[in-house]
Amino acid sequence: MGVTSSVLDVPTMRSRLDRLRRHAAVAGVAATVVSPGSDLRYLTGIAGSSFERLTALVVPTDGAVAPVFVSPALEYAGLGHVPLADLGVEVRTWVDGEDPYALALGGVPTGRVAVSDMTPALHLLRLRDAGAADQQLAGPVLRELRMRKDAAELAELRAAGAAIDRVHARVHEWLRAGRSEADVAADIARAIVEEGHATADFVIVGSGPNGASPHHSVSDRVIEGGDVVVVDIGGPLPSGYGSDSTRTYAVGTPRERDVASAYAALQAAQQASVESVRPGVTCEAIDRAARDVLAEAGLAEHFIHRTGHGIGLDGHEEPYVVAGNDLPVEAGMTFSIEPGVYLAGRWGARIEDIVAVTDDGVERFNTRPTDLVVL
Amino acid sequence: MGVTSSVLDVPTMRSRLDRLRRHAAVAGVAATVVSPGSDLRYLTGIAGSSFERLTALVVPTDGAVAPVFVSPALEYAGLGHVPLADLGVEVRTWVDGEDPYALALGGVPTGRVAVSDMTPALHLLRLRDAGAADQQLAGPVLRELRMRKDAAELAELRAAGAAIDRVHARVHEWLRAGRSEADVAADIARAIVEEGHATADFVIVGSGPNGASPHHSVSDRVIEGGDVVVVDIGGPLPSGYGSDSTRTYAVGTPRERDVASAYAALQAAQQASVESVRPGVTCEAIDRAARDVLAEAGLAEHFIHRTGHGIGLDGHEEPYVVAGNDLPVEAGMTFSIEPGVYLAGRWGARIEDIVAVTDDGVERFNTRPTDLVVL
Repeated sequence: MGVTSSVLDVPTMRSRLDRLRRHAAVAGVAATVVSPGSDLRYLTGIAGSSFERLTALVVPTDGAVAPVFVSPALEYAGLGHVPLADLGVEVRTWVDGEDPYALALGGVPTGRVAVSDMTPALHLLRLRDAGAADQQLAGPVLRELRMRKDAAELAELRAAGAAIDRVHARVHEWLRAGRSEADVAADIARAIVEEGHATADFVIVGSGPNGASPHHSVSDRVIEGGDVVVVDIGGPLPSGYGSDSTRTYAVGTPRERDVASAYAALQAAQQASVESVRPGVTCEAIDRAARDVLAEAGLAEHFIHRTGHGIGLDGHEEPYVVAGNDLPVEAGMTFSIEPGVYLAGRWGARIEDIVAVTDDGVERFNTRPTDLVVL
Repeated sequence: MGVTSSVLDVPTMRSRLDRLRRHAAVAGVAATVVSPGSDLRYLTGIAGSSFERLTALVVPTDGAVAPVFVSPALEYAGLGHVPLADLGVEVRTWVDGEDPYALALGGVPTGRVAVSDMTPALHLLRLRDAGAADQQLAGPVLRELRMRKDAAELAELRAAGAAIDRVHARVHEWLRAGRSEADVAADIARAIVEEGHATADFVIVGSGPNGASPHHSVSDRVIEGGDVVVVDIGGPLPSGYGSDSTRTYAVGTPRERDVASAYAALQAAQQASVESVRPGVTCEAIDRAARDVLAEAGLAEHFIHRTGHGIGLDGHEEPYVVAGNDLPVEAGMTFSIEPGVYLAGRWGARIEDIVAVTDDGVERFNTRPTDLVVL
């Protein structure tokens, strides 16, 4: 457990708790149980993951009943500076041998409870057995808050975009024939941290045929002249807000003869999808804007994933830019636009920018050119 | 999703699945749902975490019904070399827009299901809604397998212990007055990887008063002459099996006058606890062996946590060496023995070794002297 406060002050936290209660009332739940992870960090600034000892924030929907923060005493020792008292949160610590589940639920109104999506079964089923048996996911409630970024959050995501752009600007220093994907990735990972990220969460270097597997990470494959190479990289800033950007590189003139035409279609598809973004447009329409251009070029079956995912404290979060999602986007929503083409066994390419919906259109948080970068 | 196979061959995996079915039958469950994480890695070698797309191994207790491995198609592309077919596992892949929960449960005998402890609520509650409503934790079943390490697992843990011992042997290169805890920790983290770990999972450098908080990690505090410094470090080898060892250092002669006598009691307590380990002794007796020595020295209230935790593919797992745990240890069990003394606001010390229960006693996987290391 640690704390970040750069984008969180007490009025912001109080406002988020109030909005949580309002959405929870609409959802018809009596209380919301928030486990360590991005949801808890969003509400309180407390960062960290769930372990075998229960830590949780329990927020009754009735604002007259104080929220409860349950924590192992040892871990709470490091959280003394979190302004839980200023938020009206009652802290209940426990030590090995005590029952934290009864402690978490004591005095909390009974009824249906919402539980944050990443709560482990270990805690979920023990809360069930301790009396909170009528459970539903808190994701739909929390996403209503977390999808719409405030100005401080947008500033963090903009800074994250600029930081990862600086890394892409340096990829030419490391990516060349004769080096393995893993060696190139190690250099990129170091640069991700040097440019201001807390960690290098993911570094995909997919060269030649490996670029045709969207989820390929890195391998010992030695990069060859003529390879097309997908470089998909990112990580969180110290605030927790992250970057995620893909550019595609060519080591000299591409070996495969269909690269120029397919890449041109991909670039047009990505551009069309970005330009389609404005308040009121649905996620599926943004997905379709990319898909239609690729279909027009005869590449429909080579674009085998959704167009994008939301980004914030989680690298993948709502909203998802995917067929079937009829959610209209709103100002303050942030997500990736990352169509790709994958020619099995030969090569692949992807272009990914993070964008924010503005009051009247779109802002790109990644501003590097989207051209194929020939090294 | 990645794969490690260094300690897993097909006969071992098959034997683990068989033992899982036998323990599940005793527990009265019809099937066990295993999510990504250490449980899935233990059974199949597939490493990774749970994300928003369902990946799971569903093992019917009835050995006549094939286990099912459900995976997003994109992620399964990277798992083609996992010998699931050799294990009789049926692979079912899915793409965005399909219902993976129905896919996971199709053809699986209905009834009570056990769900691995770290399964996120996101998947647990959707499995419930898809028909697997009668849920219990799989932890008690899986711990029966995972607590008892086989020879290959013990070899990995022994190697991890030797690797972290090599790091402690180098701490004197970095730990000195005038440097911050964070700077020292960065050097140690680099050495953890240099000595063979996949990652440096945790580096605690608790100097002076910070050493009195067992869960303190690192800070910008500048180390001073006379400080006592707790260094608790570890991480997984590429196989996933991890290290975890604590030694306490003094930067010159300790400033606080009670260090020598309290440390001597701590060292005796840790030694007594290690020496108490043999098959048939309960976890709580091993805890008490340390606690009694410290109580004798008048330090009972300064030892404020359990004596130890199991270690394997997880850094913290069963068995826990804690009051109230009457489990008798058996040959092949591995856990930490790590009593500490914490003098609030002044200093703290901890000594931690990983040990394995042998047929007639105990083997230490950390073999560095347990003396206070005066630099």
